[in-house]
Amino acid sequence: MNQEQMKALLDQVAEGHLAPNVALEQLRGMPFDDMGFAKIDFHRSLRKGHPETIFCQGKTPEQVSLIAERMANRGETVLGTRCTQDTFTAVKTRIHDAIYYEEAKAFTWMCREPEFSKRYVAIVCAGTSDIPVAEEAAVTCMTMGVSVERIYDVGIAGIHRLLEQRERISGATVAVVCAGMEGALPSVVAGLSSSLVIAVPTSVGYGASFSGIAALLAMLNSCATGLTVVNIDNGFGAAVAACAITKMVENATK
Amino acid sequence: MNQEQMKALLDQVAEGHLAPNVALEQLRGMPFDDMGFAKIDFHRSLRKGHPETIFCQGKTPEQVSLIAERMANRGETVLGTRCTQDTFTAVKTRIHDAIYYEEAKAFTWMCREPEFSKRYVAIVCAGTSDIPVAEEAAVTCMTMGVSVERIYDVGIAGIHRLLEQRERISGATVAVVCAGMEGALPSVVAGLSSSLVIAVPTSVGYGASFSGIAALLAMLNSCATGLTVVNIDNGFGAAVAACAITKMVENATK
Amino acid sequence: MNQEQMKALLDQVAEGHLAPNVALEQLRGMPFDDMGFAKIDFHRSLRKGHPETIFCQGKTPEQVSLIAERMANRGETVLGTRCTQDTFTAVKTRIHDAIYYEEAKAFTWMCREPEFSKRYVAIVCAGTSDIPVAEEAAVTCMTMGVSVERIYDVGIAGIHRLLEQRERISGATVAVVCAGMEGALPSVVAGLSSSLVIAVPTSVGYGASFSGIAALLAMLNSCATGLTVVNIDNGFGAAVAACAITKMVENATK
Amino acid sequence: MNQEQMKALLDQVAEGHLAPNVALEQLRGMPFDDMGFAKIDFHRSLRKGHPETIFCQGKTPEQVSLIAERMANRGETVLGTRCTQDTFTAVKTRIHDAIYYEEAKAFTWMCREPEFSKRYVAIVCAGTSDIPVAEEAAVTCMTMGVSVERIYDVGIAGIHRLLEQRERISGATVAVVCAGMEGALPSVVAGLSSSLVIAVPTSVGYGASFSGIAALLAMLNSCATGLTVVNIDNGFGAAVAACAITKMVENATK
Amino acid sequence: MNQEQMKALLDQVAEGHLAPNVALEQLRGMPFDDMGFAKIDFHRSLRKGHPETIFCQGKTPEQVSLIAERMANRGETVLGTRCTQDTFTAVKTRIHDAIYYEEAKAFTWMCREPEFSKRYVAIVCAGTSDIPVAEEAAVTCMTMGVSVERIYDVGIAGIHRLLEQRERISGATVAVVCAGMEGALPSVVAGLSSSLVIAVPTSVGYGASFSGIAALLAMLNSCATGLTVVNIDNGFGAAVAACAITKMVENATK
Amino acid sequence: MNQEQMKALLDQVAEGHLAPNVALEQLRGMPFDDMGFAKIDFHRSLRKGHPETIFCQGKTPEQVSLIAERMANRGETVLGTRCTQDTFTAVKTRIHDAIYYEEAKAFTWMCREPEFSKRYVAIVCAGTSDIPVAEEAAVTCMTMGVSVERIYDVGIAGIHRLLEQRERISGATVAVVCAGMEGALPSVVAGLSSSLVIAVPTSVGYGASFSGIAALLAMLNSCATGLTVVNIDNGFGAAVAACAITKMVENATK
Amino acid sequence: MNQEQMKALLDQVAEGHLAPNVALEQLRGMPFDDMGFAKIDFHRSLRKGHPETIFCQGKTPEQVSLIAERMANRGETVLGTRCTQDTFTAVKTRIHDAIYYEEAKAFTWMCREPEFSKRYVAIVCAGTSDIPVAEEAAVTCMTMGVSVERIYDVGIAGIHRLLEQRERISGATVAVVCAGMEGALPSVVAGLSSSLVIAVPTSVGYGASFSGIAALLAMLNSCATGLTVVNIDNGFGAAVAACAITKMVENATK
Amino acid sequence: MNQEQMKALLDQVAEGHLAPNVALEQLRGMPFDDMGFAKIDFHRSLRKGHPETIFCQGKTPEQVSLIAERMANRGETVLGTRCTQDTFTAVKTRIHDAIYYEEAKAFTWMCREPEFSKRYVAIVCAGTSDIPVAEEAAVTCMTMGVSVERIYDVGIAGIHRLLEQRERISGATVAVVCAGMEGALPSVVAGLSSSLVIAVPTSVGYGASFSGIAALLAMLNSCATGLTVVNIDNGFGAAVAACAITKMVENATK
Repeated sequence: MNQEQMKALLDQVAEGHLAPNVALEQLRGMPFDDMGFAKIDFHRSLRKGHPETIFCQGKTPEQVSLIAERMANRGETVLGTRCTQDTFTAVKTRIHDAIYYEEAKAFTWMCREPEFSKRYVAIVCAGTSDIPVAEEAAVTCMTMGVSVERIYDVGIAGIHRLLEQRERISGATVAVVCAGMEGALPSVVAGLSSSLVIAVPTSVGYGASFSGIAALLAMLNSCATGLTVVNIDNGFGAAVAACAITKMVENATK
Repeated sequence: MNQEQMKALLDQVAEGHLAPNVALEQLRGMPFDDMGFAKIDFHRSLRKGHPETIFCQGKTPEQVSLIAERMANRGETVLGTRCTQDTFTAVKTRIHDAIYYEEAKAFTWMCREPEFSKRYVAIVCAGTSDIPVAEEAAVTCMTMGVSVERIYDVGIAGIHRLLEQRERISGATVAVVCAGMEGALPSVVAGLSSSLVIAVPTSVGYGASFSGIAALLAMLNSCATGLTVVNIDNGFGAAVAACAITKMVENATK
Repeated sequence: MNQEQMKALLDQVAEGHLAPNVALEQLRGMPFDDMGFAKIDFHRSLRKGHPETIFCQGKTPEQVSLIAERMANRGETVLGTRCTQDTFTAVKTRIHDAIYYEEAKAFTWMCREPEFSKRYVAIVCAGTSDIPVAEEAAVTCMTMGVSVERIYDVGIAGIHRLLEQRERISGATVAVVCAGMEGALPSVVAGLSSSLVIAVPTSVGYGASFSGIAALLAMLNSCATGLTVVNIDNGFGAAVAACAITKMVENATK
Repeated sequence: MNQEQMKALLDQVAEGHLAPNVALEQLRGMPFDDMGFAKIDFHRSLRKGHPETIFCQGKTPEQVSLIAERMANRGETVLGTRCTQDTFTAVKTRIHDAIYYEEAKAFTWMCREPEFSKRYVAIVCAGTSDIPVAEEAAVTCMTMGVSVERIYDVGIAGIHRLLEQRERISGATVAVVCAGMEGALPSVVAGLSSSLVIAVPTSVGYGASFSGIAALLAMLNSCATGLTVVNIDNGFGAAVAACAITKMVENATK
Repeated sequence: MNQEQMKALLDQVAEGHLAPNVALEQLRGMPFDDMGFAKIDFHRSLRKGHPETIFCQGKTPEQVSLIAERMANRGETVLGTRCTQDTFTAVKTRIHDAIYYEEAKAFTWMCREPEFSKRYVAIVCAGTSDIPVAEEAAVTCMTMGVSVERIYDVGIAGIHRLLEQRERISGATVAVVCAGMEGALPSVVAGLSSSLVIAVPTSVGYGASFSGIAALLAMLNSCATGLTVVNIDNGFGAAVAACAITKMVENATK
Repeated sequence: MNQEQMKALLDQVAEGHLAPNVALEQLRGMPFDDMGFAKIDFHRSLRKGHPETIFCQGKTPEQVSLIAERMANRGETVLGTRCTQDTFTAVKTRIHDAIYYEEAKAFTWMCREPEFSKRYVAIVCAGTSDIPVAEEAAVTCMTMGVSVERIYDVGIAGIHRLLEQRERISGATVAVVCAGMEGALPSVVAGLSSSLVIAVPTSVGYGASFSGIAALLAMLNSCATGLTVVNIDNGFGAAVAACAITKMVENATK
Repeated sequence: MNQEQMKALLDQVAEGHLAPNVALEQLRGMPFDDMGFAKIDFHRSLRKGHPETIFCQGKTPEQVSLIAERMANRGETVLGTRCTQDTFTAVKTRIHDAIYYEEAKAFTWMCREPEFSKRYVAIVCAGTSDIPVAEEAAVTCMTMGVSVERIYDVGIAGIHRLLEQRERISGATVAVVCAGMEGALPSVVAGLSSSLVIAVPTSVGYGASFSGIAALLAMLNSCATGLTVVNIDNGFGAAVAACAITKMVENATK
Repeated sequence: MNQEQMKALLDQVAEGHLAPNVALEQLRGMPFDDMGFAKIDFHRSLRKGHPETIFCQGKTPEQVSLIAERMANRGETVLGTRCTQDTFTAVKTRIHDAIYYEEAKAFTWMCREPEFSKRYVAIVCAGTSDIPVAEEAAVTCMTMGVSVERIYDVGIAGIHRLLEQRERISGATVAVVCAGMEGALPSVVAGLSSSLVIAVPTSVGYGASFSGIAALLAMLNSCATGLTVVNIDNGFGAAVAACAITKMVENATK
């Protein structure tokens, strides 16, 4: 149940088509749904305007598939991140038309095709190995109905590759920039364009990259302005923030 | 020289009041100004829409005051962060009407009163000791012409203080939330409201707070969505990002 | 041999039914039992009032099953933590009525059903993935005859789920609160209720959670009072302390 | 206003001596008191049963003295921790009969002599240099009306000093054990006695003690049971938890 | 070729039974033996008086077996540490009478039974899980002809187990004390006895033990004197130092 | 397309055999080649004078083989590092005459035999386990046409092995020195010879070696001069820098 | 009261010159002396054979001088380490003939000139800045009656300085080797000589030396054998262990 | 005594103007000069071709001035780094014509004006606050007779400032690039030009810059090739390596 559905319900009450008590019951039942091992939080997606999301890592395939089914039964868009092929197989048995995105390690089930935003988020990544994180961000944007432009493999070792993409990046409302190793790409992007940058350190690298710590520190210490940071490999979190900004701007335009 | 001034210049050209060559010369001369020990980057403020900023720490009072004077002479708003009383004394000898904000450890010089935005940024902080970081953010917003609401000392140890402020926070376009110690406040704010949250870890605490690392990690690992993070004590950086979002939304509304 | 059994033995001596020398011999033999690779410490459970516990990790299935058998033969309640399915299989061949708790990764053998306490420990956890740690705590309480209330999946991203449970938490003598990622839940619980809180950081998370360090630091730096901390994933340790407090209070009531 | 005062107020209402509206007003006004730079949280001391506490570090002497005065005016016991001599001088100008504890770096103002508990908390420390942390704990206990026994300088390098104190430690309801360097004392105390142990790592040491990290890690990894941990140098926090337990047991006895 | 063999050779020269040139050739050829991928360093065992040792981890089974064979052919005692079952299988094909110690993960080949020292090294460990490290130390002592006493599973959680062993520990020339988790045992041993203690942190533990860092730090910060430390899990290194001391003392007695 | 090929093309233009427009087109097309998941950066090898290099880790065998094929088709020397046997199998199906270096975990394809430099790089390593890193460096040098001398297993525990190699090291233009564990070898080499030293920490070791951090820190803190450092296990990076220096010197001689 | 004095007392008893009860009283009184803020542990020096030592850091000058006086009054040798000039001034007012060693930051008071050992400890250090740590070791040896040879400023950047000292080092029973920065000197010394090496990392260095961590890690990971490690800057601890070994060997010779 | 002076001496011998024995005596006397607290290592400057250097930090002004005087008396160029104004005052009393470089915190004494190299080292730095480190590098180059080009304040937040300097950087034989905060500048420089880059992390920054660790990690993980790294703030070390390369190339050209 999304914000629009909720407003419709309240309008029905206002217009006298629905008894307040009945509406109340539906609303009371809605916030979260206690499954014993999980309390599905429908409030959050209401508040935040993003799909019901299951962070699959650390949950059994059984748990993931049950939660997903419950969400789908309410007619909500469902997004599962950090989902292995095995877990998706379990989901598939309950939600036959769920879709798996292999690179993103994510699955989705959408009750209807979203209407995509006119404004877009640029998803930028430094190297081929950063693509899984970038794709998690891209799939998340898709479930939220926000358009994306993918600009991949433009790391700073060959800065001309990046310079060629300057316009596409500047055209975006927000740029989600993923990089591992030395993590310099978001700073350079923020130094080149006027877009807001949400930086995503990735765990790509070896030795003193310490599974993304080097990149994370570089991003936190950026001398460029208009740049904020999320957790290592957190493509989902960056996308949710980027979509929220994009929608605020797009809605304001209307 | 800000974006509006630049647009005025270009309009003059478009209207035939200024020869393109003369305009070009002004623009070419503008990008940065080489002072030997510093190359003032006027492009950045143009690109980013924020005032010329001097990070005073690690520069001598002499250097700071010279850079500030050069900026002020161009008619730009000037902001100096991490500025000690001693450094400000040096600035004062060159820019007599510069103003010092003691809690924020910042000074400003503004060529004219900004027109403040209708939308506002909520500046939230957990405890009295976090106020200096919050004030750095507030002063930065002021120099960018963005309104703020200060909501201070609402840490989670007494969560009812926070609950009372729920509406003021939800009314903001973006919330900049500063907290040291366990750094949980931004997550709780993001869990309570629908605002975007920019989390600022502060170095407030002792022992295993490790000068803000504990708070930083807590914020990066937040289970709440719509939350991004900046460096420890970086009130300035959070404010610049928050103002950029606020202005994008406000401009879209026009 | 637990404290009551010991008291019985001493009473027998006091009443002249047992020669002091014989009693002495039993007591002297009791403290620990040397199995070559392990010295079973019966004193500790006497002193501490908790079951004989085997930390299975790092021991071979053979070693675990031999230690467990020796303990069971003395008529002691046995608890094995961090026990894999394989190790339990070895235990099962020697103690046929041992029970395995899959989520808790623990096994128990109890010579008789404990009489459960009137007061209870609240076992709270932030997310579905924290359940294994919470269950280790719950199973430990059970072996010590302390009642528990499970309050799961009430993380702060949807704080209303937690607010609904406020009364059940406040009714507890002690709350054991397990959380990974940003580890804020124990602080919020301690800020909401008057219960003592024993905080258990879990290794749930990714990236900058550093396998529970982020949560651990957050808990150590809590601005809430009445909160103490145990090692990452140490549900057992938290439960032992919680039960000791609960029993002290319950015994004092008698 | 403490719990007893609150109960008295409610009794007046119950007995018809006070109009509910008037009582309500007093209670509504009570929760917290907004001083601009600080929102004094009276709820917390109510909920937690400990004195109003000011963590002085990071606040100006002016701020500390104003907050303390406001608290004292309400007739609450006041405790200030991490208070320098300079800050206390400022407090003294507003609260003439406040008392400073030099070793504890704490001040108190108590409206009346507390009635001390029969049960006691053992405050144990490893070396002379750990005394400031131990004294912070002892002073905190005093403000909460809980008796203490000081057992100082009994580090494990000369374990016979500790063995001589075994009985005094075992007689305590809770032992607060402070140690720096290798931080082994709490584990040894927990291994020797049946008391609950709250371990306080101190920043005493040099080199690889890393300002208390070595001691903190040792305590978190203790193989002894019934031991929980607080932040480095957090004598206050340990004492609040210890007093809460002691009072629960003592109240249950009544 | 060990020191005694070398002395025999030199005696032959002194007695005229061996031409100096021939002796020189043997000695010159001896220092190291270049196998391309390894330069076997015979000098080191000469200088240090310990067996030729192969650190097997990171070498292929083929490499280990070739190096071992070359050493054995010279009539040297051979010790292989951190040796998997697979690697030993390869060694076995070339040195048929090599012996594998499963708990120690070590193999040996000794040209003749050593004459054991009268003095002994006490090998002490805290828990059953520390035994592999303790056994690496014990096997190393054996190859150097130094007697050992094994005192296992005497961790501080039940300190009476340790107190019973006080005399056996004090009788040793050196005590090698292995402990993981909080790593307090070596400090307690050094506090109880007059023996020199060589402390070996082990990687036993979980969570904040950080694979032995907690134990390592505890040992480095020991407040007990006469205690030195080696690397995490380095039973071999501790044993070599302990044997060197034992032999120095025993030789001085002669 | 390497620098020589580029010069040939430009010469053709200079001699009138190629229309500038056509040349321009070839050059414009050349910088990078967009394969969707990868933008091959031909500029870099041009600028840097090293072969096209694929860092295979984190890429699928399919991706690696496609990139390699594209490079080979342009007649460029190809080098793949951190390549597993499986990935090489995929490469082999597309480039039949590619060669795999098992110890170096690298593959190469060279369009023609390089002409080797007269000057050489000394590749020095401390132990047998460091050889894979040293071989990555050696194979890289080979693809760049720079001669190498391998000086392996000369760690400082037996310093005479190193002293014997003094001349071979001093004869080198640059020494690439690989060491794990305590990482002292590069400092000793720099202290003994006049060569420039590029130090490569390796992840060889255990316990407090922290996968190469100990060695890395030792090298960064070297008291010897003329020594610079690369990332842990980065034999490739050290070799590229060493070859660049060697070629600069050799070219200057001509 | 040292071991000899104790033996004398016991001999008097054995010979009938002292009543057992009187002797008992003296011995019972001896173990430790309770001064309120400190329990002087006379047992430890008895057990360990080293002087009464006061670690002055973190104690007030008043406390240090009182403890020192009490020790001196018993006729014990007194050693104070980490003693500032100010603290020594306080000591001097109570013990007029105490001596201060400025480089070592230590003071001593010796009731009589010790008889020095024939065997010696080599005190080796890498650079001039390491001398304070080396001198703490040297002064400690002096108070224990053990001879030392100082070999200073022989760091590995100029290894020939070290090679010249080879014989003096090899003649020592134990070498205490102090080094900061990369901390390689102890490994090189252990690789060159047959002496036991006790390695002392010092906090000398900058940047990535992390106040001695780099040196500490290098020493723990040494590939040389017969080397153990103490805490950063712990010259005292190294000396106590070195003297204990030296005395064991020397006593065995008698 | 530098290499040229040494060659002159040997030539005198070859020509019969100096008796070999006399020459030998001079050479033997030369390697190092024992001053008790320091052994001046003349071999090192001979081997390495750089001036006698005194790392002043951690030495007393007295020690520094004595060492400097001894060096100057031999006619060697003297360089003192990390030298405070106070220490220089002491040096000045002994070497009247020594020169102090305030920004570089270094002093020099040069017996004669060096002949400067034709090739140059580019000294690049990111911000005004990095200048002290850059100047340490520049002064070091000067003492070695190597020309430099200073390119300051060209950080990546305004990348156009850097692009303007592309040619000056590419013209250098080596670029020494200093940067704090996110430390991305060396990677961008290496990505733009064909010069070798020696990266110097600086301790400039705050919060998660951890005194240069963030910059250090970024540089070690650079995806650009031809880049090596030195310790944090080690301008001296970078310069020595850069000069060595420059001289090798320049000498080869002759």
